[in-house]
Amino acid sequence: MVKVFVAVFVALAAVSAPAHAAVTDETAYVLNTLLFLIGGFLVMWMAAGFCMLEAGLVRSKNVATMCLKNIVLFALAGLMYLLVGYRLMYDGVDGGFLGSFGPFLPADGTLDGADADFSAGYASSADWFFQMVFVATAASIVSGTLAERVRLTGFFVFVIVLTGLIYPIQGAWTWGSGLLTSDRFVALAGAGFSDFAGSTLVHSAGGWAALTGAIVLGPRLGRYDPRGRVRPMPGSNLPLATLGTFILWLGWFGFNGGSQLAMGSGADVAAIARIFANTNMAAVGGTLGAMLLAQLRYKKIDLTFVLNGALAGLVSITAAPLTPSPLAAVAIGAVGGVLVVVCVPLFDRLRIDDVVGALSVHLVPGIWGTLAVPLTNPEATLAAQGLGVLATGLWVSVTSLVVWLGLKATIGLRLTPEDELAGGDTSELGMEAYPEFGRGSQFAG
Amino acid sequence: MVKVFVAVFVALAAVSAPAHAAVTDETAYVLNTLLFLIGGFLVMWMAAGFCMLEAGLVRSKNVATMCLKNIVLFALAGLMYLLVGYRLMYDGVDGGFLGSFGPFLPADGTLDGADADFSAGYASSADWFFQMVFVATAASIVSGTLAERVRLTGFFVFVIVLTGLIYPIQGAWTWGSGLLTSDRFVALAGAGFSDFAGSTLVHSAGGWAALTGAIVLGPRLGRYDPRGRVRPMPGSNLPLATLGTFILWLGWFGFNGGSQLAMGSGADVAAIARIFANTNMAAVGGTLGAMLLAQLRYKKIDLTFVLNGALAGLVSITAAPLTPSPLAAVAIGAVGGVLVVVCVPLFDRLRIDDVVGALSVHLVPGIWGTLAVPLTNPEATLAAQGLGVLATGLWVSVTSLVVWLGLKATIGLRLTPEDELAGGDTSELGMEAYPEFGRGSQFAG
Amino acid sequence: MVKVFVAVFVALAAVSAPAHAAVTDETAYVLNTLLFLIGGFLVMWMAAGFCMLEAGLVRSKNVATMCLKNIVLFALAGLMYLLVGYRLMYDGVDGGFLGSFGPFLPADGTLDGADADFSAGYASSADWFFQMVFVATAASIVSGTLAERVRLTGFFVFVIVLTGLIYPIQGAWTWGSGLLTSDRFVALAGAGFSDFAGSTLVHSAGGWAALTGAIVLGPRLGRYDPRGRVRPMPGSNLPLATLGTFILWLGWFGFNGGSQLAMGSGADVAAIARIFANTNMAAVGGTLGAMLLAQLRYKKIDLTFVLNGALAGLVSITAAPLTPSPLAAVAIGAVGGVLVVVCVPLFDRLRIDDVVGALSVHLVPGIWGTLAVPLTNPEATLAAQGLGVLATGLWVSVTSLVVWLGLKATIGLRLTPEDELAGGDTSELGMEAYPEFGRGSQFAG
Repeated sequence: MVKVFVAVFVALAAVSAPAHAAVTDETAYVLNTLLFLIGGFLVMWMAAGFCMLEAGLVRSKNVATMCLKNIVLFALAGLMYLLVGYRLMYDGVDGGFLGSFGPFLPADGTLDGADADFSAGYASSADWFFQMVFVATAASIVSGTLAERVRLTGFFVFVIVLTGLIYPIQGAWTWGSGLLTSDRFVALAGAGFSDFAGSTLVHSAGGWAALTGAIVLGPRLGRYDPRGRVRPMPGSNLPLATLGTFILWLGWFGFNGGSQLAMGSGADVAAIARIFANTNMAAVGGTLGAMLLAQLRYKKIDLTFVLNGALAGLVSITAAPLTPSPLAAVAIGAVGGVLVVVCVPLFDRLRIDDVVGALSVHLVPGIWGTLAVPLTNPEATLAAQGLGVLATGLWVSVTSLVVWLGLKATIGLRLTPEDELAGGDTSELGMEAYPEFGRGSQFAG
Repeated sequence: MVKVFVAVFVALAAVSAPAHAAVTDETAYVLNTLLFLIGGFLVMWMAAGFCMLEAGLVRSKNVATMCLKNIVLFALAGLMYLLVGYRLMYDGVDGGFLGSFGPFLPADGTLDGADADFSAGYASSADWFFQMVFVATAASIVSGTLAERVRLTGFFVFVIVLTGLIYPIQGAWTWGSGLLTSDRFVALAGAGFSDFAGSTLVHSAGGWAALTGAIVLGPRLGRYDPRGRVRPMPGSNLPLATLGTFILWLGWFGFNGGSQLAMGSGADVAAIARIFANTNMAAVGGTLGAMLLAQLRYKKIDLTFVLNGALAGLVSITAAPLTPSPLAAVAIGAVGGVLVVVCVPLFDRLRIDDVVGALSVHLVPGIWGTLAVPLTNPEATLAAQGLGVLATGLWVSVTSLVVWLGLKATIGLRLTPEDELAGGDTSELGMEAYPEFGRGSQFAG
Repeated sequence: MVKVFVAVFVALAAVSAPAHAAVTDETAYVLNTLLFLIGGFLVMWMAAGFCMLEAGLVRSKNVATMCLKNIVLFALAGLMYLLVGYRLMYDGVDGGFLGSFGPFLPADGTLDGADADFSAGYASSADWFFQMVFVATAASIVSGTLAERVRLTGFFVFVIVLTGLIYPIQGAWTWGSGLLTSDRFVALAGAGFSDFAGSTLVHSAGGWAALTGAIVLGPRLGRYDPRGRVRPMPGSNLPLATLGTFILWLGWFGFNGGSQLAMGSGADVAAIARIFANTNMAAVGGTLGAMLLAQLRYKKIDLTFVLNGALAGLVSITAAPLTPSPLAAVAIGAVGGVLVVVCVPLFDRLRIDDVVGALSVHLVPGIWGTLAVPLTNPEATLAAQGLGVLATGLWVSVTSLVVWLGLKATIGLRLTPEDELAGGDTSELGMEAYPEFGRGSQFAG
């Protein structure tokens, strides 16, 4: 009769299993993959956000060029990440400096429902797609800073190197389980480097690439007069820049939420929900922080400060969107927003001409957000965070500088003064973005 | 041997449980939460829609101000709903007037897969996020009506009160299981007040706040000549307004579909599917209804009538997007579209200057949609619907009026005539939205 | 004791059933329906993409008209597909020419969790919604080609016939399991006609309708001088066109991914993931292909070529987004991008005035993508693909031509020369899209 009781026990266990009511393997596989797909299309949409933001913040003579750069950089990022970037970042890094060379080869689509193995937890193409849109974000940051004077060819070559090599290699160090999460690094710094969704890996990385480019290129003609005063060159279309900001705010839910990397359990989806709330509240903090400081300091509220403040809040929370309370998220974001209002004039004083303010939005708040992780996540250490910021900064700055200088010395990086004054649209594209409005009214048909 | 048979029976029951094939508790938790997240990001996106719609419908000298208002009101709504609104609306209302004071404190992120309790059905942060974007919608309605003459400070203070107190308290009455769904109310009216996704709670509430503001502020300078004739002040950028309309149409699938509040069962997702179809068909009805009446009445089809007609159709279906047949949804939406063409000149005759037509879109069709619920939902009564509309209208009108008058008497609510003529962009922001186009061409660089 | 062992065995089977861990019927029903809803709202969003693309590529005097056409055609498509199109395409086609006449009647919303039957696999309203947004896409293609000279009324009547009859009938032949997938067709062509998401059924179908319309209407006044030279009529707002392209790129993930038609299993979601990756890579190929050829041929990179190249890449992959490898997807898309740069001047040489280049984007790459299916899908044959393209082309061309000629002969199809020169905005809408900018500055207020 013992066996009977065993049978009853086992049977009851079987009955109670559905009562435990866990997600099954295959359902988890579907839900995990779905997270990558939804997160991925939201982050892909950020490419449009950057494009609108930057197209709205340049002068009308460079708007079509800005649009071209943004769509082509998204294409180049996808191609390079397919050909080499993804495996360099994720395939066999194993505590080291980089993964393997070679194109991404999806295992999906050959699945057969009958004997499929769902133990990987998600479809490989979905992971590739989600990671690919991140590298495009890093490249988008560069285009804004260098606007209105960089030549198309030089910029595109830089994007190819950035998205195929520079970004994936530093990405491998942390997200690819490379040296910044290795046992030796943990022994040194007390913890692995912690950057949940990329305050450093995406945003400050893009920022360093942009900063070195801005230094090599120099400011736009006439931007600073001999006495160092800044000549205003206002953006041509502010509702477009506002639209871009809203698109980025929306896309950031995918950026941070998708970085939970799993939705196949209640715990995961609860984490994603919390990330959504915190991501929103950091943007709130950035918006209000920038607005209040701008009002205090200038007595008028420059809309671009507020838009960039919202984005800086989002960048700031990206390193740790799960661990803060919503009110802490407001505070972390508010510091980001304040940094924008402080840094924009600072970069101008250094005669670093950042057309859309991307350094004040992505580089500085990206560093801030990364260093702030230990405030809310007890598993992170300031030493690990500082070393991670430093390592990424050095790597991206040095390699970017080499590429920028190489391009300058060979194919050339900057428009001729005549072409720059005429605007990239006329000189490189042979067209106008708004042929019937303002300066271009001679084209009205 | 009885026990053996019991064992077999229990075992078979266990086997047949997966054959019943119900959604498990944890899977339902994931899917319910996912609905709030998807619905939430779609409704968040409506903030961009309102911004583009309103930025397109004001004159260029107020466009940057419009953008600033829309992004800041979204931030303020999030902050106030976090600090006080959410719990005022949902925490312990229990048939009464309001819930409790205090900030929202998420229970998520502390979940542990091993011993988690999924009986709540969804992650609390996801619910907060979804409800938060609704309050932002109500505030967005106000900004459009009062455009081109209200001062930033006064408007922002009003938004703080609206999103922190006025909206959540009336929300508590219905969605927080408060007095409009209490036993005493049901005894009085034959049913509880039924407003599925907020024709009244969100749209007409925002409308009443806008209406009282418009009355207190008065019309724009020069809008009505002494003989009462309306001076046209056409919107500066109609494709932007069209984009805003499409964004709102898209976001409304989240607004109404997410208001099913659960996706963890086949019955729920079938309801959401039906809501999607009906929401779309009501917008179709509104679009075509407004277009046909505009053509009949004016012999030309004003695009803004058609855009507002689509939105009025969406507002109309929002109180009951599940119960109508798709053809009934077309009819309900078409009445909304017709109301736009009828009401816009009516408000002008009353010298109530509604810059973007928000009263004709949100207030009147919101009431219509709420009163129409008994036509398709036999569980609703006209008495309950009328009392709900009345109670909400009185509450929001009276409290808003007090706030508007208080602001007018203290910090001031309206731009000086010089500032209004110069436009908010110059006077409050010190910039231009389109510095190179049209009037601003002196800034071309 | 045998029975005891049976009990143990059965109990263990019950325990191991969750280890097999298949998706349950009801969960699959939820996930399948969710795919239609997400895919559907992404494709609905493409309506905004077409609107922005076309509004950006026409001259400012026709921009409001373009916006009106796009929102109204979306409404008409929804109404006609509800009233007659859906059942004509899907209800009882059974190898034949068309389904049944009558409105779509949803079975949803009456489901009761207790005794629901989930064997259909998805909610009927969700399927209707997803299919409805596809027919709207086909109609959107037509509006771009015929811009700037077609009258509103004639265009709308054509849309009614296209979305209610012409499109659903040819759709029935393939997606409705009609004659192009019948046994007799397979016997003839070696396979059924294979068009996964509509390179032919949606894109080239829309293209044929546009082509016949362009021929009947004739070119815009002054477009071709007597010696056949093309007079440039540049688009008025290129960032808007770029935004439209990004919207379409985003929406295409829903277009192709949703066409998997199921997400309730691991195999399905893996297929969707692969479709996402391939869809993106085809757009990449189209973008870069068009850019490189434009640079080689014209020494300048026209932004509109690149935007249309991205879209042509997307059209090209739409017939088979699952079977290619990602690199093959790049190649398939690149051919599409090259076709744009080749075809745009070709149509001009034929004096077929295609205002936004829709024929070079949707018609030609749609055919290319359909014929390319056998390259990656061994189950497709060139004969079947060719016959499918031919049958669809003939059907849509002939029926469209009849409708266009009928409209021309009765209510008239073209603006008067005075109205065309003044622009549709003034002559048909009595308003301006940008009253304060450029030509319209007399309205500045």
